[in-house]
Amino acid sequence: MDVNFSKMEGLGNDFIFMDDRTGAIKTHLNYPDIARRLCHRHFGIGADGIILILNSHTEDIRFRIFNADGSEAQMCGNGMRCFAKLLFETGIIDRPEFHVETLAGRVTPKVFFDKENRVSSVRVDMGEPALTPDKIPFTGLLSDAVSCPVTVGDDTVLLTPVSMGNPHAVVFVPDIRAMDVEKTGTPIENHPCFPEKTNVEFIEIVNEHEINMRVWERGAGETLACGTGACAAVVASHLNGKTGPEVLVHLAGGDLSIYWDKKTNHIYKTGPATFVFSGKICL
Amino acid sequence: MDVNFSKMEGLGNDFIFMDDRTGAIKTHLNYPDIARRLCHRHFGIGADGIILILNSHTEDIRFRIFNADGSEAQMCGNGMRCFAKLLFETGIIDRPEFHVETLAGRVTPKVFFDKENRVSSVRVDMGEPALTPDKIPFTGLLSDAVSCPVTVGDDTVLLTPVSMGNPHAVVFVPDIRAMDVEKTGTPIENHPCFPEKTNVEFIEIVNEHEINMRVWERGAGETLACGTGACAAVVASHLNGKTGPEVLVHLAGGDLSIYWDKKTNHIYKTGPATFVFSGKICL
Repeated sequence: MDVNFSKMEGLGNDFIFMDDRTGAIKTHLNYPDIARRLCHRHFGIGADGIILILNSHTEDIRFRIFNADGSEAQMCGNGMRCFAKLLFETGIIDRPEFHVETLAGRVTPKVFFDKENRVSSVRVDMGEPALTPDKIPFTGLLSDAVSCPVTVGDDTVLLTPVSMGNPHAVVFVPDIRAMDVEKTGTPIENHPCFPEKTNVEFIEIVNEHEINMRVWERGAGETLACGTGACAAVVASHLNGKTGPEVLVHLAGGDLSIYWDKKTNHIYKTGPATFVFSGKICL
Repeated sequence: MDVNFSKMEGLGNDFIFMDDRTGAIKTHLNYPDIARRLCHRHFGIGADGIILILNSHTEDIRFRIFNADGSEAQMCGNGMRCFAKLLFETGIIDRPEFHVETLAGRVTPKVFFDKENRVSSVRVDMGEPALTPDKIPFTGLLSDAVSCPVTVGDDTVLLTPVSMGNPHAVVFVPDIRAMDVEKTGTPIENHPCFPEKTNVEFIEIVNEHEINMRVWERGAGETLACGTGACAAVVASHLNGKTGPEVLVHLAGGDLSIYWDKKTNHIYKTGPATFVFSGKICL
């Protein structure tokens, strides 16, 4: 069967979108097989994952994402922004803010527009940060409830542990370009203080509204961008008195705007979503 | 401008094809820029190169290929097979054998069909092998005009040097799967006997019509397939009395059928070309 698809990317994280609201694709094939085949970068279309547009019984629409290896992920911030933009621009959804069913529960993206009335960015509620040691989880001592000295090799590193559903260790440095992220990131990722290991964010403060970030992702190494890491970085920057609660985060893959709403304790992440091309493939 | 394209692959070597016979694309943009942008595997379509379908003043059609880094290549066997299949199946060319203008001169692909009258494989004349030391170039001693003992570390390796326009060193081994291709390939690639370095083919003879091959490409490391390497391997296998002149070569990326026509001294390579998907992108 011929299937139409759209290819989109958010901060370099790229996805193949297919509309299977009729169930026609699922009737013929299973999604993990399609993901493995289509995500291959030489024999397929090439992507980090496929995202299905599906009908929902509880929300406005349903989102399912399968990684290149066929495994299903719960949610993906970069993918959700692209999903929201695509649904709005194709007219499948006609409101700028709507509810999406995901394996991680309800997600409510909101699209923003440029002067030509095209979607310029998408905001997603990332939920609440957790700062207590049992929730991160973190077994070190928090000296002032936010920062903690941890011994890494011959050095003592001051880090702020934050959970955004996954663990993060935020480290402030004078110059992120001069850093050896792998050398410092690896021992922190695997430090005994983090029983489930941790992602590590290296942050250079530009001013109270702007930071530069490089990220060492748990199990993946240095990556172009990490949405939950950007949220954790702003929480840590604000708690340490270095920035306000609304910060533009510059990552290798692009920029994310993070807003920590102190009234509700929710964190909102706004970022780009780019349409790359559309195509047709025989499945 | 919106541009239609086709994505195809031959032995895992993948290309974006665009028809610019009207010159409309070239009027707006230059090909190296398009190649760099579209070949990016996260922000673009993703490919090893772009191939342009162009009008020719001297042949039936003209082929130009630009690598992902924007550089122009002279020719590419895997790309030419896809090119021939695409031209025939879209009706741009209506004869199974035709002449193509390339930077490497005239190339004459011929398409073959399956029972449903679809193109199943494409044959390309790869020209003549060169076996003389000055043409390869090779500065070692050829003991019996084909094989040569070369010292690699503590071992002596018997190799057959062949040029297919680029240098190759063919080595026969009992089991290619058990081999450490990088460990043996690197010192041969850089051996002083090959002043322009060399590609290295490791060959396991299956029978006189069939061989298994792994290839260590000069400057690239181990790759899925190398068309000129498969030709060199069959020349060496035949000269060493191990196979006939017509051999099926099994590579990691797929199979190639190589025929050395001893009357004309030309080598014909027949292999697969696969249409993956079509799409539209805004350039």
